[in-house]
Amino acid sequence: MLTSAESDRLRVVLVETRNPLNIGAAARAMSNFGFRHLRVVNPYAPAFQEARSAVGASSILSRAEKFDLLAAAIADSTLVIGTSAIRTRHVHHTVRRSEDAARLIHRRLRSSNVALLFGSEKRGLTNDDLSHCHWLLRIPTHEDNISMNLGQAVAVCLYELIRNAKSPRATEKVPPAPAAESERITAMLLDALQLSGFLDLRRVADSEQRIRRLVRRLHLPARDAVIWLGIFRQIAWKLRHPASD
Amino acid sequence: MLTSAESDRLRVVLVETRNPLNIGAAARAMSNFGFRHLRVVNPYAPAFQEARSAVGASSILSRAEKFDLLAAAIADSTLVIGTSAIRTRHVHHTVRRSEDAARLIHRRLRSSNVALLFGSEKRGLTNDDLSHCHWLLRIPTHEDNISMNLGQAVAVCLYELIRNAKSPRATEKVPPAPAAESERITAMLLDALQLSGFLDLRRVADSEQRIRRLVRRLHLPARDAVIWLGIFRQIAWKLRHPASD
Repeated sequence: MLTSAESDRLRVVLVETRNPLNIGAAARAMSNFGFRHLRVVNPYAPAFQEARSAVGASSILSRAEKFDLLAAAIADSTLVIGTSAIRTRHVHHTVRRSEDAARLIHRRLRSSNVALLFGSEKRGLTNDDLSHCHWLLRIPTHEDNISMNLGQAVAVCLYELIRNAKSPRATEKVPPAPAAESERITAMLLDALQLSGFLDLRRVADSEQRIRRLVRRLHLPARDAVIWLGIFRQIAWKLRHPASD
Repeated sequence: MLTSAESDRLRVVLVETRNPLNIGAAARAMSNFGFRHLRVVNPYAPAFQEARSAVGASSILSRAEKFDLLAAAIADSTLVIGTSAIRTRHVHHTVRRSEDAARLIHRRLRSSNVALLFGSEKRGLTNDDLSHCHWLLRIPTHEDNISMNLGQAVAVCLYELIRNAKSPRATEKVPPAPAAESERITAMLLDALQLSGFLDLRRVADSEQRIRRLVRRLHLPARDAVIWLGIFRQIAWKLRHPASD
């Protein structure tokens, strides 16, 4: 059971959604379960317009925020979760069943914002999208048909969040860093790695994603994020100005 | 968790559904959660035809059975449950929240068939339909918008049936780095911080302990520890040999 303040800390983020009906369905499920903050990243423009202007479009839909970049849509969240139909062990991320995921989301919502990401109807979340995620949530679908309709997947995830789990309310102690801070560290680290020649030694196409995932896996507390940012800023500065004292 | 035999004892019954998309959505959710028996009672005929003949219509849809009377559609079930958005005490029926309903449905599915009824999009189940029901299931929707989309309601009910109530699963955990590895990273990071001038800027007596604690708070997975060690080694090397390429 979430309090109203806790519900308001969830951001439902639809990434590159194509079908206006699905944007509308996501908004309806949010309304059914008491969530209010819908964000769409780079939607198929006519779809978003059509969804917003539909007869009876809810206040959730009319207040939905549009972003060009995923990083901006999740900047104020300290926990970023991707949804995926993947069943097996994921290469880069811990995959949690929705039941277990809900407990962790509840805990975080007590103190800070959580972003729940849903990918496009066609191909889900891209590797680049996933590199922003701390871990993945999967609905335990049947192996014969693992892929859910987007609107139904949103409804099921939100239902899992509001159903009565009777979970003990242990609070997380240290406040975690928001995604924007992790992204600043990622950028600064990338800069230092470039200057140090580290990236040249291990040239791969997706080095930026790899580094982003590496930083996300640190699950940095807010106070430590500040320190790490200072560390990489100083290192990058020194690498640029080797002669200075 | 339901066995396959238990899943096969559930009948999803759509009563007077109007929209072919909703019939298709119900079938898709059934497929996602491993249920097979879809029954439609007195559907709007073109809707049912359209849903069945849709491109990619599932085997569930093509095998769906059509009935003129609800009584016939539920004849082989020993437990008949109506779904309803009603929040308050119902005049004639016990209303159970979906979480509690699932437990009773599970118990019955061990030995005999259960029918789960969904009414039309416009007015839900009629009093006549309800008179066939043993009790009602309600999804705990928010008071501001209690009425769910049909396809989403089916998805949520079926998800509640297949979700693992006990959830004793250990989450996939990545193996953590041993302390020796964290200490190597600490030493290498200290070296880089010394060379970069970071420690000079913030001279404190216990800087080594502070950095050690900072690294321990990362709770690094073993595979990431190797990467971070390489990062700091390369940075330290470059700081020592600024002219080298």
